[in-house]
Amino acid sequence: MRIALLGGTGDVGEGLAVRWGRDTDHELLVGSRDPERAREAATAYAETVAADTGGDPDDLAIKGFTNEMAADRAEIVVLAVPPYHVADTVETVADGLDADDVVVTPAAGMQRDEDGFSYHPPGTGSVAALVREETPDAVPVVGAFHNLAAGRLAALDAPLGIDTLVFGDADDAVSRIVRLAEEIDGLRALRAGGLGNAPEVESLTPLLINVARENDDLHDLGVRFD
Amino acid sequence: MRIALLGGTGDVGEGLAVRWGRDTDHELLVGSRDPERAREAATAYAETVAADTGGDPDDLAIKGFTNEMAADRAEIVVLAVPPYHVADTVETVADGLDADDVVVTPAAGMQRDEDGFSYHPPGTGSVAALVREETPDAVPVVGAFHNLAAGRLAALDAPLGIDTLVFGDADDAVSRIVRLAEEIDGLRALRAGGLGNAPEVESLTPLLINVARENDDLHDLGVRFD
Repeated sequence: MRIALLGGTGDVGEGLAVRWGRDTDHELLVGSRDPERAREAATAYAETVAADTGGDPDDLAIKGFTNEMAADRAEIVVLAVPPYHVADTVETVADGLDADDVVVTPAAGMQRDEDGFSYHPPGTGSVAALVREETPDAVPVVGAFHNLAAGRLAALDAPLGIDTLVFGDADDAVSRIVRLAEEIDGLRALRAGGLGNAPEVESLTPLLINVARENDDLHDLGVRFD
Repeated sequence: MRIALLGGTGDVGEGLAVRWGRDTDHELLVGSRDPERAREAATAYAETVAADTGGDPDDLAIKGFTNEMAADRAEIVVLAVPPYHVADTVETVADGLDADDVVVTPAAGMQRDEDGFSYHPPGTGSVAALVREETPDAVPVVGAFHNLAAGRLAALDAPLGIDTLVFGDADDAVSRIVRLAEEIDGLRALRAGGLGNAPEVESLTPLLINVARENDDLHDLGVRFD
């Protein structure tokens, strides 16, 4: 499988790239507006994985591309960009998407106020709804990977032992992303229903940040449903 | 400590009553609009606890009262009522509250739609904000015990091993409720900041219901932050 990580030079892209890079044989296409930065990031991720496995970074299928080229070549397109770049990123890559692809949205809209972070979705009601609105109708949209601390994902020596919630209106696409998530060691994927349930899932991201801020011994928090 | 469970004949009241009844020596005042129903519930809860511990139900400090009388006598007043009864319940008991008491809100506003349950707070922005608005200014309000499946609380033979989030603007009051929560075996209390963070905590309740509905092996879900 070819997985594009758009905005893949950021911390969510890094975390997913090194986990899939280590735990699977999928081709990882790190995307950026600047292909040179994408190639540098891809090289660094391959070195991180090789350092963990003792392998050769040149044997790893982690390469850098423009966002457009990454999306065009991949079957799974992860929008690892901040919420305010979701709309323009999808617009940039839309021509390269088709009905056999899946667009994956891990972003949550947040704002910071005196109490900490709060959920602040775009006018569409959720980031996932915005992605759905911007993505060609035939291409399924799935939400996943919101509630994973990027720093923890990127630290390959730390076992995960946490859950991610996967939601969407197209069952096949949801199942593909559930399987892809569970190929990461220590990550359990749970279904959370349709795109209409996006706000409750996206709200977990500011909640996890607040709980980490308010409790001394906790950081890079994940969540486990039990 | 005396703890009033207003609307304590419902399932959240039952769960908290039997857990505190078994794991602590606090006096539990089960409140209802109908004192006869409150007394019947209190008797049943004492029997549940005694059946678990092998003790005598008559030795347990679990008694039934009107909501007004329970709130008047207690230092901790838990609003174990549905969100749409929060305002009138607080109004009924307000005269019996003072600055040394703590009002605790575990409720979340939800509605059901085609995708499952979604967060649907009152016009104040959260149930906690509504409780704050209705409660005399001098009396601290704390949110807690939202994300506990009532059926799991009530099943005393099931170990909990889950977390509850506690939030509020008065640090002393939050600390009292954190301690009270952690007196329940297997329950860890984590701080989630001020009342302004209520929506993200209350949103967990419909999320847990959705995740339980969508995944075959999960029910009566709780959450663990890790």
